[in-house]
Amino acid sequence: MQVENAVGRMIESNIGGIDVKPFSGANKYSPGSKLAELSEALKKCDIRDGMTLSFHHQLREGDHIINMTLAAARDLGIKDLRVAQTAMFNVHEPVIDFIKEGVVNRIEGSINGVVGDYISKNPLPYPVVLRSHGGRWGAIRTDELHVDIALITASAADEFGNCTGIEGKHAFGPICYSQIDARLADKVIVITDNLFEYPCRLQEIDEGYVNYVVEVKNIGDPEKIVSGTTKITEDPMKQGIAHSCVELLDAAGLIKNGMKYQSGAGGISLTVTKYLGELMEDKNIVGEVAIGGITKHLIDIYEKGRFKKLYFGQCFDYHSAKYLADHPGIPILNVGHYADPYATSRAVDSLDTVILGGTEVDTNFNVDVNTHSDGRMLHGIGGHQDTASGASLTIITVPVFRKTNPIVREKVTNITTPGDVVDAIVTNEGIAINPRRKDLIEKLKGKIDVVPIENLKNIAYEATGGPQEIEFTDEIVGIIKWFDGTILDVIRKVKM
Amino acid sequence: MQVENAVGRMIESNIGGIDVKPFSGANKYSPGSKLAELSEALKKCDIRDGMTLSFHHQLREGDHIINMTLAAARDLGIKDLRVAQTAMFNVHEPVIDFIKEGVVNRIEGSINGVVGDYISKNPLPYPVVLRSHGGRWGAIRTDELHVDIALITASAADEFGNCTGIEGKHAFGPICYSQIDARLADKVIVITDNLFEYPCRLQEIDEGYVNYVVEVKNIGDPEKIVSGTTKITEDPMKQGIAHSCVELLDAAGLIKNGMKYQSGAGGISLTVTKYLGELMEDKNIVGEVAIGGITKHLIDIYEKGRFKKLYFGQCFDYHSAKYLADHPGIPILNVGHYADPYATSRAVDSLDTVILGGTEVDTNFNVDVNTHSDGRMLHGIGGHQDTASGASLTIITVPVFRKTNPIVREKVTNITTPGDVVDAIVTNEGIAINPRRKDLIEKLKGKIDVVPIENLKNIAYEATGGPQEIEFTDEIVGIIKWFDGTILDVIRKVKM
Repeated sequence: MQVENAVGRMIESNIGGIDVKPFSGANKYSPGSKLAELSEALKKCDIRDGMTLSFHHQLREGDHIINMTLAAARDLGIKDLRVAQTAMFNVHEPVIDFIKEGVVNRIEGSINGVVGDYISKNPLPYPVVLRSHGGRWGAIRTDELHVDIALITASAADEFGNCTGIEGKHAFGPICYSQIDARLADKVIVITDNLFEYPCRLQEIDEGYVNYVVEVKNIGDPEKIVSGTTKITEDPMKQGIAHSCVELLDAAGLIKNGMKYQSGAGGISLTVTKYLGELMEDKNIVGEVAIGGITKHLIDIYEKGRFKKLYFGQCFDYHSAKYLADHPGIPILNVGHYADPYATSRAVDSLDTVILGGTEVDTNFNVDVNTHSDGRMLHGIGGHQDTASGASLTIITVPVFRKTNPIVREKVTNITTPGDVVDAIVTNEGIAINPRRKDLIEKLKGKIDVVPIENLKNIAYEATGGPQEIEFTDEIVGIIKWFDGTILDVIRKVKM
Repeated sequence: MQVENAVGRMIESNIGGIDVKPFSGANKYSPGSKLAELSEALKKCDIRDGMTLSFHHQLREGDHIINMTLAAARDLGIKDLRVAQTAMFNVHEPVIDFIKEGVVNRIEGSINGVVGDYISKNPLPYPVVLRSHGGRWGAIRTDELHVDIALITASAADEFGNCTGIEGKHAFGPICYSQIDARLADKVIVITDNLFEYPCRLQEIDEGYVNYVVEVKNIGDPEKIVSGTTKITEDPMKQGIAHSCVELLDAAGLIKNGMKYQSGAGGISLTVTKYLGELMEDKNIVGEVAIGGITKHLIDIYEKGRFKKLYFGQCFDYHSAKYLADHPGIPILNVGHYADPYATSRAVDSLDTVILGGTEVDTNFNVDVNTHSDGRMLHGIGGHQDTASGASLTIITVPVFRKTNPIVREKVTNITTPGDVVDAIVTNEGIAINPRRKDLIEKLKGKIDVVPIENLKNIAYEATGGPQEIEFTDEIVGIIKWFDGTILDVIRKVKM
C-alpha cells in the first residue's frame, strides 16, 4: 500500500517487511530561549515532591548553588527532595535546615563535615548513600540513581547551555562530574554567573542536553572555591611518611621512565609528589603521565619536563584551573573516562601507583575513609576505591595513631576500600606490605625494611591504650557502596 | 535479615524497602590488552552473518578501512552484513564485489559515486537508507539503527583506544561522527596506523567505549584523504552565482557584526565564502562564528579577524586538519552537538545563514541532493537537511540548467530537503525567494531584484526543451529519510 506524504510523494507504508512512517512536514527548527530565573527554570522542569536533584561539587567550600536551589525549591513548596550531589561541604550547613523543614529527606552523595555530623546523630528516613566518583557515574549510567533535574554549575556558559568551568571570574577547573547527569537526567539546568556570546568557546557540557540556562549574580565565593587542602605538610612526622613513601616507590622500581602516577590532595600526598619530583630530577626520570586531580605542585613538575603529559580531572587549586585556561590542548578527563566501572577500561587502570590517605586502616589492609573513630560520617569516598582498584601499587599513608586514637587497628570502624586492593601501608613507624603481594615483598628484600602490619597496630595500641569502644545502634546512617553497586558496609548510628 | 558480605560485615539484605546486594569481593582491575589483528578483533567481537558494521568517512577517497574490513569479514566466511558507513566514495568500488559475493546485502549510509551507480541498476534486497548527518546520529541514538560492531578509524590511538584524527601522518581532522557509534554499538574497534604512548593526548573517542585496537600499516592514501572539492570556482557563471549570493546576504541584513555562518565545500559555496570575507573586510564586519566543515578559505578569513570563533566539524582540506592540530583550544563540534535531532538545541539552530547546493530544485523550493536527473543515486545528504532546517536564511545555489538538463524544474526527481525549510534559490538567471518568506521579500524590496521561481524554470525549460522523461519501476533502490526518521521520498529503479 502506498500513502501520500506531506511533500506529495507516494510512499509504501511497509518497505521490506518494515513499517515506515511517512514524512509529516518540516519547519524551521527553533529551540526558543533557554534563559530563565532559577525558580522559573525549576518550575519549567516540572519540579515535584520526591524528585532527585543533582549537583557537582567543584566550587567546594565556595559553592552557592546547592543552598540557592534548595531555597528556591522550598519557596515553591517542594518537599522530600533527594539530593544527589557529588560532594557536600561545611558551606552547605543550611542543608540541615532544609532537612528539618522537610524540603530534603534523602541524600545520595559524598558528605564532608557539618551535614554529615548532623545526620550521624539524626539519621534521614533513608540512609545517605556514599559512592566513589566512578560508582556514582556507574549508578547514574545504570539508572540505579535516576536524576530528575541536574543542576550544573558553570563559570561560563552561552544562552543555549554550552558551558565550562575553565573560564570566567569564578573558574574552578573543568566540569568533569556532570556529563553523565547531563546525558541521563530528565531535565538539565546550567547555572552560571558569566553569560558568554554564543558559542561558549570551551564546553565540557554541550547545549544539546541543556533545557534551561540560569544566570545568577555569583555562583560562589572565589576565596573558597579552591579549598585549603593543597598545602605541603610542615609536620616532620608527615614529612617522614612522605619520605618513606618515595623510598618504597623507588625500591619497588616504579620511579622509572614512562611512569604513570596519581596522588591525592592531602598534605602527605602532596609532599610525596614534591619529593617524587625532586627524585625524578636527580635521577633524570621522565614519567609518561600524571593523572587525576591536579595541583600547582604537579604542574611545576610537569613544567620541568618530568612528566610528558598531564591528564586533568578536577583542579585542586586556582593555579591549576588558570593553567588549564592558559594551556588549551591539555586533555581533560571526565569522571567516566577516569573511573566508569562499566567502561572497557578506565584511566585509573593504567596507573602504576596511587598515593591515598585514610581515617583508619586495619590489619586486613581495609581502609576507612568515611567515618572517624567516634563513628561520625564526615568524609566522602572520592576516587579512593576507583584508583585503589586500578593502580598496580596502591599506597595508603597514615600515622599509626592520632592523639589518643589508634589509626592502624584490628578492625576499621567502616570499610571504604577493601584490603584486597590495597598493597602497602606507609606509616611513621614503618611500612607494611599486604601479604597477598608476595612479588612486591620479594622485590623489596634488601632494599627497604618492611614490618608486619600487626606490629604497627601494636605500636598504636601501646601508645594509646587501644581503640575506644563505641556502641552502635541498629539504625543505619549511611551506606558505603563499592563502585559496582554492592554494599561494602553500613554506617550505624552511635548510641548516645 | 542480615547477611555477611565478602569483607565480613553484617549487612541488611533490604534497606528501607529496597533489596540490596552485599559486596562480593574486589580485585585489582585490569582491562587486559586490547591490541589485536583486524581479523582477530572481528572474531573476538563475535562477528556473525547479518550483523551491522559501522564506519566513518573522514578519509574520503583515501579510505582503506571499509574495503579492508569487509575483506577480512569475507575471509572469515561472513555473509549478509549491513554496512552503516557515514559515507562511501569511489574508492569503495570493491564493495560492489562484496555485494556480488553476498558479504554485504544492506547499506544504511551516504553513497557517493560508483557504488550508488551500481546499486541504482542492481538494487539490494533491502533499499539503501539515506540519512542526514543528524538523522544518522538520531537513528543510532533511538536504536532505529543498531550497530553491532563500530569500526572507528583514527590517525593516532593509544593501546587502550583513546584516539584522534587530528595528529599522526594521516591526520584527517577530528573524528566527529563516531561518538554515538562508540557509545551505543555492542562492540567497538579502533583502527589506526599510529600507535601513541598511553594516553593519546588528543582524544575524540575515549578508551572506555573501545573493545579492541587494531594497528594497520596504512589507514589510507594521504593524497586522497582530503578530496579535491575545496577549490574556488573559476567558472564565470558560478562566480556570478556566488556574487548574487553575497548580494542577497547583504540585502537581507545578514552581513553584520555577530553573524553566524556556514557554507558547504562545493565550488560555489567556497567562492561565496571568499567574497563574503572580502566584503566583511571592506565593511569592517566581525562575525561571531563560522560553523561546520572547515576549509583553508574560512581559516584565512578567521585569521584576518573576521570571525571571532571557528567551530570545527569535519575538515575539508589538509590545511584545516593541520591548523587544528597546531591550534589546540578551538572547539570541536561532534555531529551530535551539530545536528542531533533529539537535542534540546543544535549548533545548526544558531546559524544565521547557510549556503548549500543541490542536483535539482523545483518550483516548490524542494531540493534534490541525492539523485541525478537520470534517476541514479549518486550522492549523500550530508548536513543539507540539518542546516537547512536550522538556519534563518537557507540559500540553495544552482545554475538554472546544466548542459541539456533543466536544474530548476516543475518537480525534482527526488526530494532530499523540503521547500518548507528553503528560503532562497540563487541562480545564474536570478534569485527566487520562497513566497513563505514574505518578511524577507519585503526586506529585499528596492535592494535587489527577485524573480518568481517559475521564471527560472521557464528559462531552464526554454534553453533545454524541458526535462527528459524517465520511466521508473516500482522497485525501490533507496529511501530518503528526513532527520526525524520519517520517509521523505523513495528512489525507484529506472526502467532499463
